[in-house]
Amino acid sequence: MTSAVVLYGLARSVYTRIARLTLETKRVPYRLDEVEVFGPQGAPAEHLSRQPFGRIPVLCHGDFQLYETQAICRYVDETFPGARLQPGSPAARARMAQVVGLLDSYAYRPMVWGVFVQRVRIPLRGGTPDEKLIRESMPMVEKSLDALAALKRESRFFAGDELTLADLHAYPMIKYLALAPEGRCALEARPSIADWLSALDPLPSVIATRTEYESSPGARAPA
Amino acid sequence: MTSAVVLYGLARSVYTRIARLTLETKRVPYRLDEVEVFGPQGAPAEHLSRQPFGRIPVLCHGDFQLYETQAICRYVDETFPGARLQPGSPAARARMAQVVGLLDSYAYRPMVWGVFVQRVRIPLRGGTPDEKLIRESMPMVEKSLDALAALKRESRFFAGDELTLADLHAYPMIKYLALAPEGRCALEARPSIADWLSALDPLPSVIATRTEYESSPGARAPA
Repeated sequence: MTSAVVLYGLARSVYTRIARLTLETKRVPYRLDEVEVFGPQGAPAEHLSRQPFGRIPVLCHGDFQLYETQAICRYVDETFPGARLQPGSPAARARMAQVVGLLDSYAYRPMVWGVFVQRVRIPLRGGTPDEKLIRESMPMVEKSLDALAALKRESRFFAGDELTLADLHAYPMIKYLALAPEGRCALEARPSIADWLSALDPLPSVIATRTEYESSPGARAPA
Repeated sequence: MTSAVVLYGLARSVYTRIARLTLETKRVPYRLDEVEVFGPQGAPAEHLSRQPFGRIPVLCHGDFQLYETQAICRYVDETFPGARLQPGSPAARARMAQVVGLLDSYAYRPMVWGVFVQRVRIPLRGGTPDEKLIRESMPMVEKSLDALAALKRESRFFAGDELTLADLHAYPMIKYLALAPEGRCALEARPSIADWLSALDPLPSVIATRTEYESSPGARAPA
C-alpha cells in the first residue's frame, strides 16, 4: 500500500474513468499519466511494452503491472482499505459481474462510439457526424438500457442497494450517452436508469473525474 | 444447492463449454438444454426472454437466472462446494481476471471465428473457407498467444500453480484454434501454451465436454 500507484490512460476515455472512479471511491492516491492511443499512429512504443494491444488503462502498483479494466477495478477494491465495492453474496456478486459483462459486450460500442463520439465529440472538433451510424446504433443502445433496467429492478444501484463496481463501470458510458440528444431521450424513457444517473452525478469520485464534455453548457443536469 | 441447475446453450459453443467446464470441475449436477442461436433466424423467442441479446449460455439455478459467462462461472464457483477455482490473493485473482478479459477482448474472435470456423467447421459442412479472413486473423492470434505466454510465465496454469477459471475460459478457444493447422503451428512456436493445453486435455471435465470436432481423426493429441 505504500507503493506508488500510477494509472496510464486518458482522462476522456471511458475505461480510464472506470478505473479512476474505483481509485477515487477507495480514496487511493494515484497519478494519472496521459497516454494518447486513439491517434493515427496508435499507442506509443513505450506503452506497448505495458499493454501489447495498445489499449488503456494500465495500472502500476509498485512492481505489479495490470491491464484489463475489470481486473484493475477488482484488484483495487481487494487491495486497498475503505468501502467494499463488491457485494458479499454470490447472487449479488453475479449480478454485478453480469452488468459489467453486459456493458462491455453490448452497450459500450453503440453508446460511446456509435452515439456519443458521432453526435458530441466529432462536431466539437469541427467534423460531421455519421448519421447512419448513430441511427443504426440506437436499437442496441435501447436494448442495452432495457436489459440494464430489467436487472436493476427496484434496487437503488445495479447490484442491490449499495454502490458496487457495476455502477462505476456503467457511469462513464451512460453519462456520455446522456450528452447526446438521442441518448437523453432514450434515458428519459427509462426513468429508473435516468434517476440512477442523477444519483451518481454529485458523488465526489464522479466530480473529481469529470471530462471536458460534461462542462459544456447545458450538458450537465441541474444539481 | 438442492435446486435444479439448467444451462441453456450449445455443446459446440465456446462460451457454453466454458460454463460446462466450471460446472463439471465443481461436480455440480446440471442439465444442458440445447438452444440454436447461430442460425439465420437467430435465437428463438423463448430464449430471448432469458437473454435479450439472443446469446448463450444462460444459467438457471432454481429461480435465479443469469447470463454473461464470466458471471456464471464465478457464481458457480462461489455457490457450490468443491475445489475453489479463484485464487485467494488479490494479485493472483487480478491475473485470472486479466487473462479472462484478454481472451474475451482480443483472442476469441480471431481464434474461433477467424481461424477455427473458417479452417475446420466450414469445410466439414462442405463450404469454402475465407482464406483472407484466416490470414488477417493470424496476427491477432499470435499477439494474443504472446500476451498469454507473458502473463503465464513459469507457472503451471494461467494464474499460478492451481487451475482457475482463467484456464477453463482459455481451454475451449485455444483447443479450437489447435484444430486448424495455422493454429497448431502458432502453438508449437509457443511451447508454454502448447504444454498447458496438453496438460488440460486429459481432465475429466474436458473429456466430458468434448465437442464433435475433437473426435475427428488426427485432431486429438496422443494421450
